[in-house]
Amino acid sequence: MPALMALRKRAQGEKPLAGAKVVGCTHITAQTAVLMETLSALGAQCRWAACNIYSTQNEVAAALAEGGFSVFAWKGESEDDFWWCIDRCVNLEGWQPNMILDDGGDLTHWIYKKYPNMFKKIKGIVEESVTGVHRLYQLSKAGKLCVPAMNVNDSVTKQKFDNLYCCRESILDGLKRTTDVMFGGKQVVVCGYGEVGKGCCAALKAMGSIVYVTEIDPICALQACVILMVRFNDVPSTSGNKNVVVREFLDRMKNGCIVCNMGHSNTEIDVASLRTPELTWERVRSQVDHVIWPDGKRIVLLAEGRLLNLSCSTVPTFVLSITATTQALALIELYNAPEGRYKQDVYLLPKKMDEYVASLHLPTFDAHLTELSDEQAKYLGLNKNGPFKPNYYR
Amino acid sequence: MPALMALRKRAQGEKPLAGAKVVGCTHITAQTAVLMETLSALGAQCRWAACNIYSTQNEVAAALAEGGFSVFAWKGESEDDFWWCIDRCVNLEGWQPNMILDDGGDLTHWIYKKYPNMFKKIKGIVEESVTGVHRLYQLSKAGKLCVPAMNVNDSVTKQKFDNLYCCRESILDGLKRTTDVMFGGKQVVVCGYGEVGKGCCAALKAMGSIVYVTEIDPICALQACVILMVRFNDVPSTSGNKNVVVREFLDRMKNGCIVCNMGHSNTEIDVASLRTPELTWERVRSQVDHVIWPDGKRIVLLAEGRLLNLSCSTVPTFVLSITATTQALALIELYNAPEGRYKQDVYLLPKKMDEYVASLHLPTFDAHLTELSDEQAKYLGLNKNGPFKPNYYR
Amino acid sequence: MPALMALRKRAQGEKPLAGAKVVGCTHITAQTAVLMETLSALGAQCRWAACNIYSTQNEVAAALAEGGFSVFAWKGESEDDFWWCIDRCVNLEGWQPNMILDDGGDLTHWIYKKYPNMFKKIKGIVEESVTGVHRLYQLSKAGKLCVPAMNVNDSVTKQKFDNLYCCRESILDGLKRTTDVMFGGKQVVVCGYGEVGKGCCAALKAMGSIVYVTEIDPICALQACVILMVRFNDVPSTSGNKNVVVREFLDRMKNGCIVCNMGHSNTEIDVASLRTPELTWERVRSQVDHVIWPDGKRIVLLAEGRLLNLSCSTVPTFVLSITATTQALALIELYNAPEGRYKQDVYLLPKKMDEYVASLHLPTFDAHLTELSDEQAKYLGLNKNGPFKPNYYR
Amino acid sequence: MPALMALRKRAQGEKPLAGAKVVGCTHITAQTAVLMETLSALGAQCRWAACNIYSTQNEVAAALAEGGFSVFAWKGESEDDFWWCIDRCVNLEGWQPNMILDDGGDLTHWIYKKYPNMFKKIKGIVEESVTGVHRLYQLSKAGKLCVPAMNVNDSVTKQKFDNLYCCRESILDGLKRTTDVMFGGKQVVVCGYGEVGKGCCAALKAMGSIVYVTEIDPICALQACVILMVRFNDVPSTSGNKNVVVREFLDRMKNGCIVCNMGHSNTEIDVASLRTPELTWERVRSQVDHVIWPDGKRIVLLAEGRLLNLSCSTVPTFVLSITATTQALALIELYNAPEGRYKQDVYLLPKKMDEYVASLHLPTFDAHLTELSDEQAKYLGLNKNGPFKPNYYR
Repeated sequence: MPALMALRKRAQGEKPLAGAKVVGCTHITAQTAVLMETLSALGAQCRWAACNIYSTQNEVAAALAEGGFSVFAWKGESEDDFWWCIDRCVNLEGWQPNMILDDGGDLTHWIYKKYPNMFKKIKGIVEESVTGVHRLYQLSKAGKLCVPAMNVNDSVTKQKFDNLYCCRESILDGLKRTTDVMFGGKQVVVCGYGEVGKGCCAALKAMGSIVYVTEIDPICALQACVILMVRFNDVPSTSGNKNVVVREFLDRMKNGCIVCNMGHSNTEIDVASLRTPELTWERVRSQVDHVIWPDGKRIVLLAEGRLLNLSCSTVPTFVLSITATTQALALIELYNAPEGRYKQDVYLLPKKMDEYVASLHLPTFDAHLTELSDEQAKYLGLNKNGPFKPNYYR
Repeated sequence: MPALMALRKRAQGEKPLAGAKVVGCTHITAQTAVLMETLSALGAQCRWAACNIYSTQNEVAAALAEGGFSVFAWKGESEDDFWWCIDRCVNLEGWQPNMILDDGGDLTHWIYKKYPNMFKKIKGIVEESVTGVHRLYQLSKAGKLCVPAMNVNDSVTKQKFDNLYCCRESILDGLKRTTDVMFGGKQVVVCGYGEVGKGCCAALKAMGSIVYVTEIDPICALQACVILMVRFNDVPSTSGNKNVVVREFLDRMKNGCIVCNMGHSNTEIDVASLRTPELTWERVRSQVDHVIWPDGKRIVLLAEGRLLNLSCSTVPTFVLSITATTQALALIELYNAPEGRYKQDVYLLPKKMDEYVASLHLPTFDAHLTELSDEQAKYLGLNKNGPFKPNYYR
Repeated sequence: MPALMALRKRAQGEKPLAGAKVVGCTHITAQTAVLMETLSALGAQCRWAACNIYSTQNEVAAALAEGGFSVFAWKGESEDDFWWCIDRCVNLEGWQPNMILDDGGDLTHWIYKKYPNMFKKIKGIVEESVTGVHRLYQLSKAGKLCVPAMNVNDSVTKQKFDNLYCCRESILDGLKRTTDVMFGGKQVVVCGYGEVGKGCCAALKAMGSIVYVTEIDPICALQACVILMVRFNDVPSTSGNKNVVVREFLDRMKNGCIVCNMGHSNTEIDVASLRTPELTWERVRSQVDHVIWPDGKRIVLLAEGRLLNLSCSTVPTFVLSITATTQALALIELYNAPEGRYKQDVYLLPKKMDEYVASLHLPTFDAHLTELSDEQAKYLGLNKNGPFKPNYYR
Repeated sequence: MPALMALRKRAQGEKPLAGAKVVGCTHITAQTAVLMETLSALGAQCRWAACNIYSTQNEVAAALAEGGFSVFAWKGESEDDFWWCIDRCVNLEGWQPNMILDDGGDLTHWIYKKYPNMFKKIKGIVEESVTGVHRLYQLSKAGKLCVPAMNVNDSVTKQKFDNLYCCRESILDGLKRTTDVMFGGKQVVVCGYGEVGKGCCAALKAMGSIVYVTEIDPICALQACVILMVRFNDVPSTSGNKNVVVREFLDRMKNGCIVCNMGHSNTEIDVASLRTPELTWERVRSQVDHVIWPDGKRIVLLAEGRLLNLSCSTVPTFVLSITATTQALALIELYNAPEGRYKQDVYLLPKKMDEYVASLHLPTFDAHLTELSDEQAKYLGLNKNGPFKPNYYR
């Protein structure tokens, strides 16, 4: 992750996070390790839990622990383990966090529920997922948000890379490793055509699959229409919603259908509804179950309905580097912001910092940015160093 | 344009634009004619000029005139003609516009310059181009905007369709009709990777061209990097900037290079710099000039550097229907908004109306929108009828 | 067409076609003109007719006539005109052709029928179309072929370029110019998935159309399956077959359906069946007819069912250059072949010449061919200068 | 593999391979197991070895052995093991093979070298790889081929699926599992643009990689030119050639470059040249080595230069089903052919059988084949049941 290295280097020994006590709840991967090392190098203390019970890379957790980081996570936690780990990050004599880095909002809400007083010392929350951001806006609307929060999920760079490319790059691999399916000519239904759905559709279509999309939002649906078929109101899942794929749909699916989840957590597919006596489960390989109907029909369920890309594939470091760099910058911004710049509200990352994240990643591609001439900058009314676009631009 | 028809039908004889006097300055095409007829059916009076000296479809202008509309435009106007036509729309005894529909801002600025008092009666401006919107924000920043303005260029539906698909659908045709070029294996440089650049790149890449991109904005550059080469700081043009392609670059281009403009007006390519004695111009067919250097090198210049898609191709009606519907809704909104809803500022179209425009266009594709169940809507905290996304979502 | 120039140059003043009297029947286009000039420069005399009543570029025919070539063709010939032109090429006192260059076989069969004795002097036939080649193989099977014939349609280079790329590059343009249709999301049925069908499907799919294919050959069908839907046995047309689209199918089509032909001649679509009293024809613009059913349904018929790319678009010069170069080499080969090399049979172009045609076109792309080392050539058992592949390789 | 099941079913209890003793040397995978079971069900006895020292799926070999099949193979054989296994298949008291099924020609040549007399009883060889076929043609040319051989590598169905889609479907997965590379924007050089190269390029390009191609054959090069850049005469490998990637090129590569082989066996990359004292090898994970130059430069070598798709990915069952069905039909044809139909030569699979293989695979896609009407069949001079294309058609 050369961008985080560049960030560290530009700090030139200064410690913009000196005194910061960051409690984090994200996927525990090699990339997270680099982020934690970077935060540490910039002066922060860190304690970390996993935001997903399946995605922890045990060797990374072990290496971090050896390196002196307090990490509470392992692959295959139970639900109880999950909350125990989160609790261990914050419930500690003599150490109170002053920054939260969250992915999904579980950590934030644990603190809200168990240790609301902790927010007195907390300077801000950085949240990176659709679901977590949604929960923050709900808190804010209800007047219950008591510290500033930075919505990094909707930073332009992250939107255009993390959500889109994480999925575009990992959907094929995740399906191939688990099922050896041939993509060419395969009929696929993708539920939802946001960035995640767009990434999945792009990859599958590029490999020759016949892709159908379901959508609730007419704007996203119309975007899907010009390249795909928006034709089904009865099938499976990328959407940040609860129970997109319900038992009724699963009952109607054809024999051999593969069902998987590229969204968040395990609420997208109603897996609980499949745990009934008349259905037989057969584990055919790691992360792959056949659910067998009384008439012999088999549905292939991947990762028990949990996130496919994190459970059964990997996500490109490059993409995670964008997110990690955005998170680091958001932490620095919130931690160092002068009194009054941020109130008890949810904020988008300042455009300028968003552009900075992007520019730190261009060298990977040997890309040459064109510079505005003075005359052009003047004509456009822009500063030659950006920001180049209005805040609403995406 | 079935969406405008649907709009008219839903009005059910009511006249939401009764009393509106709309002065417009847009491309004069068959689609504009349907828009004008719709506005008229909804109660408005209209006077219209062209926003581009080459794009007027004369037969449309004639048909509108016959139908009793006041249209001042023809294909191939001189610069003087252009301003004369605009002036004729507003400089009239006994008729003062109370709404402006502009594309590029020329009409708006003519009124600012010549008839500033007219703004006393004007209820709002609807503007649909990057350039025009940019000028409005500058006015607003300078405290000189004296009526509410609706920025429809940045409505999500328009952004995702008009700018992207207009170009994606017309770049190939525009080049083919004028030059019979083979796209496969052709090396192309596209200046700028906003929506227009994305559309051009997508179409050219799909047909096998080798596409290079130049960008000034690191976020757009990074998006280009993952599918294209961002490698040149020396070549040609989609950007809404002044003189992207200057004489120096043209001097360096290879023999046979085709130069064209998919951006706005004729400032993108410094055509004036080519009108020097040492260069010979040779018209090889309508809209196609060879500019010949002393050493025999020929550059193929299309439409004298003006907009290729409007001069040498056509734009799909479907895409224009989205824009026209958006414009009509924006006019209705501004005209009927209760006192105080809009101030002297630039506004984006309300999300809900944006989604409405999209939904009016779904029937074209036989697309079926999925409906949220009550439980899902509650879980997501959404109204089942939308809006479905936050305002900043794109 | 730099390849033909290169060919002329390499002849270095020699006249490999000295004494050749070539009678040709092909599309009369600018590219054909360059071919005729090349044949002439290499020593041949030429007389030419058009192989299609719509495709002649009148200005080219005129320029050729001015340049002293005997060309009998104009755009919009009647059927009678068509045969009269062909007859004028061969029915001449004191001049008998000794080589035939045919596209479709009409010329060849006219001579068979009217002037069979002419074959005594004819050294060979070069034929470039599927249909014409098919007729030659039938003659050969029936033992009636009385001179050697070169099937250049199936030369690898031509197959991979002319048939595929002619269509891929012109289908979009042909449809856009005539109908302004938006490709994104459009549902299209392509009849046949040979090279022509593959080219059409590739272009349409690249632009976002939803493409369905019909096929009779299971091998081609299976190739289509892995990227498209092979689902219809009831709709329209690229196939070299008679009446692929019959009245019954046209009766079943939806209102607004566009029907066109990318195959050969006008037998693909049963246009005659549409010339009945209950159907109304309405010409909406040049080459575009609406055929109106009694219930108001309109079918949009392009070019009266004749070849879309030749009637309503253009074909890239690059692709035609490959065909023309192949034709020129085939003529030279047949004309100069030592007695006995070719018998009264149909031959494919020798691989080595096929590779030569390809290599003459590489400079257009600044492509660098890799050379085999001596060791590699020995290991592969190949001559370093080719041929590189077995004859059956495609 | 429903096609093999269909084949078995259509035999309806007949045993077309009764008395056949098939010795095979192919990859030992689940799909091979189904082929062996099918051959056995059709009456044949089988003995089998692996054609690649890395590709054997041990659990399959074990299951076959348990099922009573004589299989000699395991993952990670040494070179000596490899030949010992092959020898064990044929060197047996009281059992002599009468059919050979080979992949690469190693088995065939072992028999030539060690047990030439065995050919007296052998009725034919079925060979499926480029390399093996090449060796057969060399034997034939040298007059040393002593039994008929069926070149199934060049059957149209196999060409269009096995070579192309095996690679297209597995290249991404193979690279992702080993290196977690991000494909978008990655610069890739593919050596060779035959079917294998086309498959690799298509998949990589679809995922946004910038693809360069090297070629020696101008026809293949020209095909590459219209969608890619053919620009390098100095880099890496899909070609069936010896030492395409030599030490000199490896010395010139950039730090971090990934080198892998999608061709045949381990001769494509000169791995031996990397086993020198000044270079350090570091195994970073299974199948992935870093080769480290004295200046610190690292080249990432996958599968020690052996086949990536078989070593580090999987190949879609569907594609292998086509090959296995073709092999089974070729064995049946050669075994049952009347005396004299096949001589001591190399043959392509009869077109009709090729089409049959394709038609057995169409049901997977719910594809509907169109049927010729009597009139159409007559017009085309075709039998309604095929074959539909000339033998040279590909």
